[in-house]
Amino acid sequence: MSDLANFLAPRSIAVIGASEGVEKIGGRIMNNLLRHGYAGRLYPINRGRTEVYGLPAYPDLAAAPGPVELAMIAIPAESVPQAIEECAAARIRNVVVTSSGFADAGEAGAALQDRVVARARAAGIRIAGPNTQGFYNVPAGIAATFSPGVNIEPGPKGKRKRIGVVAQSGGLGFSLYNRGQLGGLDFSAIVAVGNQGDLELVDYADLLLDDEDTRVVMLFIEAIKSPARFIALAEKAAALEKPLVVAKVGRHKAARRAVASHTGSLSGSDEAYNAVFERYGVLRAESPEEMLDIAALFTRHKVPRGNRIAVISATGGTAAWLTDTCEGYGLELPEIDAERQRRLRAIIPPYGSPTNPVDITAQGLRGYAPSLAVLEDSPDLDAFIVPISLAQEARIAREGEEIAAIAARSAKPLLIYSYTVASEKAKALLAGLDLHFYTRMEGCARALQAGLAYHRFHEARRATAATAPPGPARELLAKHGRVVCEYEAAELLAAYGIATLPQRLATSADDAVAAAEAIDWPVALKVQSPDLPHKTEAKALALGIDDAAALRRAFAEITDNAHGFAPTAKIRGVLVQAMAKPGLELIAGVVDDPDFGPIVMCGLGGVLAELYADVAFAPAPLTPAQAEAMLGKLKAARLLAGVRGAPASDRGAFVDLLVRLGRLAADARGGIAEIDLNPVIVYPDGQGVAVADALIVQKEPT
Amino acid sequence: MSDLANFLAPRSIAVIGASEGVEKIGGRIMNNLLRHGYAGRLYPINRGRTEVYGLPAYPDLAAAPGPVELAMIAIPAESVPQAIEECAAARIRNVVVTSSGFADAGEAGAALQDRVVARARAAGIRIAGPNTQGFYNVPAGIAATFSPGVNIEPGPKGKRKRIGVVAQSGGLGFSLYNRGQLGGLDFSAIVAVGNQGDLELVDYADLLLDDEDTRVVMLFIEAIKSPARFIALAEKAAALEKPLVVAKVGRHKAARRAVASHTGSLSGSDEAYNAVFERYGVLRAESPEEMLDIAALFTRHKVPRGNRIAVISATGGTAAWLTDTCEGYGLELPEIDAERQRRLRAIIPPYGSPTNPVDITAQGLRGYAPSLAVLEDSPDLDAFIVPISLAQEARIAREGEEIAAIAARSAKPLLIYSYTVASEKAKALLAGLDLHFYTRMEGCARALQAGLAYHRFHEARRATAATAPPGPARELLAKHGRVVCEYEAAELLAAYGIATLPQRLATSADDAVAAAEAIDWPVALKVQSPDLPHKTEAKALALGIDDAAALRRAFAEITDNAHGFAPTAKIRGVLVQAMAKPGLELIAGVVDDPDFGPIVMCGLGGVLAELYADVAFAPAPLTPAQAEAMLGKLKAARLLAGVRGAPASDRGAFVDLLVRLGRLAADARGGIAEIDLNPVIVYPDGQGVAVADALIVQKEPT
Repeated sequence: MSDLANFLAPRSIAVIGASEGVEKIGGRIMNNLLRHGYAGRLYPINRGRTEVYGLPAYPDLAAAPGPVELAMIAIPAESVPQAIEECAAARIRNVVVTSSGFADAGEAGAALQDRVVARARAAGIRIAGPNTQGFYNVPAGIAATFSPGVNIEPGPKGKRKRIGVVAQSGGLGFSLYNRGQLGGLDFSAIVAVGNQGDLELVDYADLLLDDEDTRVVMLFIEAIKSPARFIALAEKAAALEKPLVVAKVGRHKAARRAVASHTGSLSGSDEAYNAVFERYGVLRAESPEEMLDIAALFTRHKVPRGNRIAVISATGGTAAWLTDTCEGYGLELPEIDAERQRRLRAIIPPYGSPTNPVDITAQGLRGYAPSLAVLEDSPDLDAFIVPISLAQEARIAREGEEIAAIAARSAKPLLIYSYTVASEKAKALLAGLDLHFYTRMEGCARALQAGLAYHRFHEARRATAATAPPGPARELLAKHGRVVCEYEAAELLAAYGIATLPQRLATSADDAVAAAEAIDWPVALKVQSPDLPHKTEAKALALGIDDAAALRRAFAEITDNAHGFAPTAKIRGVLVQAMAKPGLELIAGVVDDPDFGPIVMCGLGGVLAELYADVAFAPAPLTPAQAEAMLGKLKAARLLAGVRGAPASDRGAFVDLLVRLGRLAADARGGIAEIDLNPVIVYPDGQGVAVADALIVQKEPT
Repeated sequence: MSDLANFLAPRSIAVIGASEGVEKIGGRIMNNLLRHGYAGRLYPINRGRTEVYGLPAYPDLAAAPGPVELAMIAIPAESVPQAIEECAAARIRNVVVTSSGFADAGEAGAALQDRVVARARAAGIRIAGPNTQGFYNVPAGIAATFSPGVNIEPGPKGKRKRIGVVAQSGGLGFSLYNRGQLGGLDFSAIVAVGNQGDLELVDYADLLLDDEDTRVVMLFIEAIKSPARFIALAEKAAALEKPLVVAKVGRHKAARRAVASHTGSLSGSDEAYNAVFERYGVLRAESPEEMLDIAALFTRHKVPRGNRIAVISATGGTAAWLTDTCEGYGLELPEIDAERQRRLRAIIPPYGSPTNPVDITAQGLRGYAPSLAVLEDSPDLDAFIVPISLAQEARIAREGEEIAAIAARSAKPLLIYSYTVASEKAKALLAGLDLHFYTRMEGCARALQAGLAYHRFHEARRATAATAPPGPARELLAKHGRVVCEYEAAELLAAYGIATLPQRLATSADDAVAAAEAIDWPVALKVQSPDLPHKTEAKALALGIDDAAALRRAFAEITDNAHGFAPTAKIRGVLVQAMAKPGLELIAGVVDDPDFGPIVMCGLGGVLAELYADVAFAPAPLTPAQAEAMLGKLKAARLLAGVRGAPASDRGAFVDLLVRLGRLAADARGGIAEIDLNPVIVYPDGQGVAVADALIVQKEPT
């Protein structure tokens, strides 16, 4: 891992608080470094010892011969400031503080952490932690950690596609290494981020992206500290075509409490995270198994370019179950073409099946490879899964080489799934052939699904259009208060090409009648007040008014209602607005996520959509393709095509509105708390959309 | 397993086609029987040998000294009839036919199978298979199978809670044993059912339910051959309080094709399976991991009586992720009460957390047991999960005994989850303490969810009311044709206490006007014809008719429309019906499942409900509690409570309608193809429901 920056590959390490044995952290670090054969110079620092594990020990850093590229501090929190002073004096640039008792332990600890970090920064020192288990650079054999998780046989060295892990939990990060490595995957480095007092998750992930052997970076995230930096990281990962495989916890109530307790921070909404992850091609996983299975695809297999797979199996039951599982993940098993079926029939027993799944039967002595050879170049197939029992090594001994040759020469992924626990002999044979195997049917299906999603993300990314220059949102918003009245919002929307209904602000009933005559009956009346954002509950609006007499009555009634509801409300007047013709009612809007800023949303209006939570989100701004993809995620979008005899609606006009809304929200640069266009009425194809009600709320000035 | 019937525990076995080596099936069977130390008398039968593996071999069954309790036939299909004759002559009762080439291999094979089975039955012989891998009686050490899956170290003998496996796929059945046994679970028997020419899946499952050490029966099902027998089996399992843990494949298109190819049968709808499984407390699993994790709960743990769990962890990240996972499965992590938090604070470091999840921290040297001891008797908690790294055995060596003691004395489940790959030493220590551990977070969560579902199933089962005597559905249906007109359906519905709207059949416009006067305006008119089940598409109905003139116009128009739409349709008249007052529109109905017969359904009416697939199913008949549970699964049921200012609807009246509909469908004993009450209008609480349209279709006489 020569390309990794110096932090993770120091040529000399001082361990401050070094000891022997496993009782103390400093002892465990020494143990790990030595056991993994750290090849650089190692300086144990301990006031009370002259030797640690046969190495000369020094009372302090000043006494060590140096130079020291990395200091690991494993002493009680209250002694850490003094250790940092010593590091500064010794001109050490990189320091890992494993000690707990900082931001992880209440206010006093947080204050101590701030002091330590400020002092370190002043001295040009970067700090990992505090409260971190450290890191493990696998190919370089640098186990700068007290985690016992590194104590397994590391995989082969040399050039391989490797997985980097950065985790907001040492226990979890090293457990991913433990499981993945024992499952035959290769790792570059595992980094526990601790309290992120100075260096953050994104810093380490950035280092790992720069490592040329690191093909995938896994992130375990409880809360993102710097959302903008996370997005920059995701953009860099996308540019390098290195997937980020991310677990993000805090979806549910008690889990959020746990995250708050563990990290001291509250994270943004799960919907916003999903929207951002999707935008930047970040692959989210729900379990450690899923993380590893996805990472395995990218490091040990080809990436599929379509969703059509073939299953080639010797056990009909496993084939059927695997097929069901794959279909549940959006994969398809097309029937094998007639010519290939004919060729398969010649090599599998008559009670087998040459369709898909292909059943070569338990007595199919010719094995899997001949069937794979028939299918590998089928233009109808994008990937292969071969369920094999690895409890015995016989099958692999017999045809492992042939299968490996097909996997190597094909541009399509070939996944082996073992439905039994693999024997040590079978594992060794597979490793010798450089073949990976999956242990879960869901793992195969999810990995292919994720690989395909990533492939499609990059296809769409190449097609993404250039961004437009910023529009006038900020200037226009600056003219208004926190609640932007509908007549004010109309101007802003118009500036972005979003048409509202014909309308005019009236300050008297006479004025309103004149406005209605100009607009054309029937009209709606809406009291305009920055103190009445929700007009319905104040009964401050009236719809479908047909003539002057009715208008005068309604005008009096709704202004009375408004005064009654909020006696101190400042009323700017009454908006006279054309009534919208009926059509398909959708909603569109913008929500402000505390982490990621403006997120565009759309959905079906009304109580049912709320019931079914049929709403889609995407970060602003949006390209037309992104707006279309967002709309495509709505179940209600099927209504746009016209169901039960209804005409098709103007989908393009609604997509266009989403794009314009996204640009508006992005141009406002964090100024918008909420936009609610409800309803947006979508007319038949070619007839556009109408915004029948618009609410914009700006953020409180901070 | 002394209580298992003779089939799975024969005291003598003849292997017809016995040989040595692993090339032939007869050799593999001999190998397995001998390797597992079969304790009975073993007779190899082979015309060409005098000895097999040192045992005297015989040219045919007649030559063997006998008596033989089980014959295993492992010779080509065409020789099987002759072998069955020999079995009959030797008065053998139980035969396993492993040979393929029967119903698994086309029509000729199926005919051969029918002949073999018929001959066997005539001779009083029960056949397992053909085309089966056989069975393995684990505690008795009888490996009557050619599956290599049995070749692992069997678990401890003696009295244990064991898992029985019956699988419509030998490869899959034995793989469940392989994985489960290596995961520390205990098995009674694994049976592969093969073609089920004679003995079926339910026969073996029934045998296993009778075995007193078998606590859970796992079933792998591709298609249920005898739905009625399956239900009887499920009822027996429920009466014995032994869960059935079932995998049922064929959910998706290609998987159904695979099942059809593998078993030659098409299975019923997935919704019907789910409805039946739920009714009988059958626990469905989606993956082998899930099957084993659920079975582990019932054989190695207590069953939870509520959904409130505590997580006690030394790693904050794992705790947060586990918490998220558990909440996703409907489990809750309540905050720990103040007094217990105080006691926890005394034993965990200050940077830990005494809330829930409880974070004892990686440096919490006191370990898990003291915290567990504080929490075990909390009335707010129903279960515990303890994530531990078992990569090292240190933790278990230190406090395994204490943890085991708490697990043994508590009435609540205590699950250990290892977030690393367990070392052999750790596994051995745990086994010595009789402690099981989970390897997946989702496994812990799903197992507790399933255990709780099973507990609640039995609570509800105890409360189930007595069934009513059958009503007059069959006699009333016998009077009508395939399509029962709405006016005829009304009589049937009335007989079951389901009220329709005031209505009268009219044969002329004058007659209709008189009817409308009697009923009261406005009315609906609907052409009544058994040839027009769907009146809307024929424009053969008119709604909201206010007076005699409008009625006469509409009468002429809709009868014309009906004649135009279907010139040969027999028209019985026009139904004059009161217009229903508006209310919440739901639908209720009955669908006929090819496997399980009448299934009651309910949902929201209209295009949106269709879009969101918000429909619930339950087999007929239904108790009120079952109808309530069914309704509770509908997201739309929340509308009944009244949302956005709407009044609460008469939920009780709708539940009552579902119960009555279920009784009607059950009384019809398979005669109904479809009932569609659409809409059923639900009025405010206390005001009941109205069936505004009713369609009943009988099955074609078969």
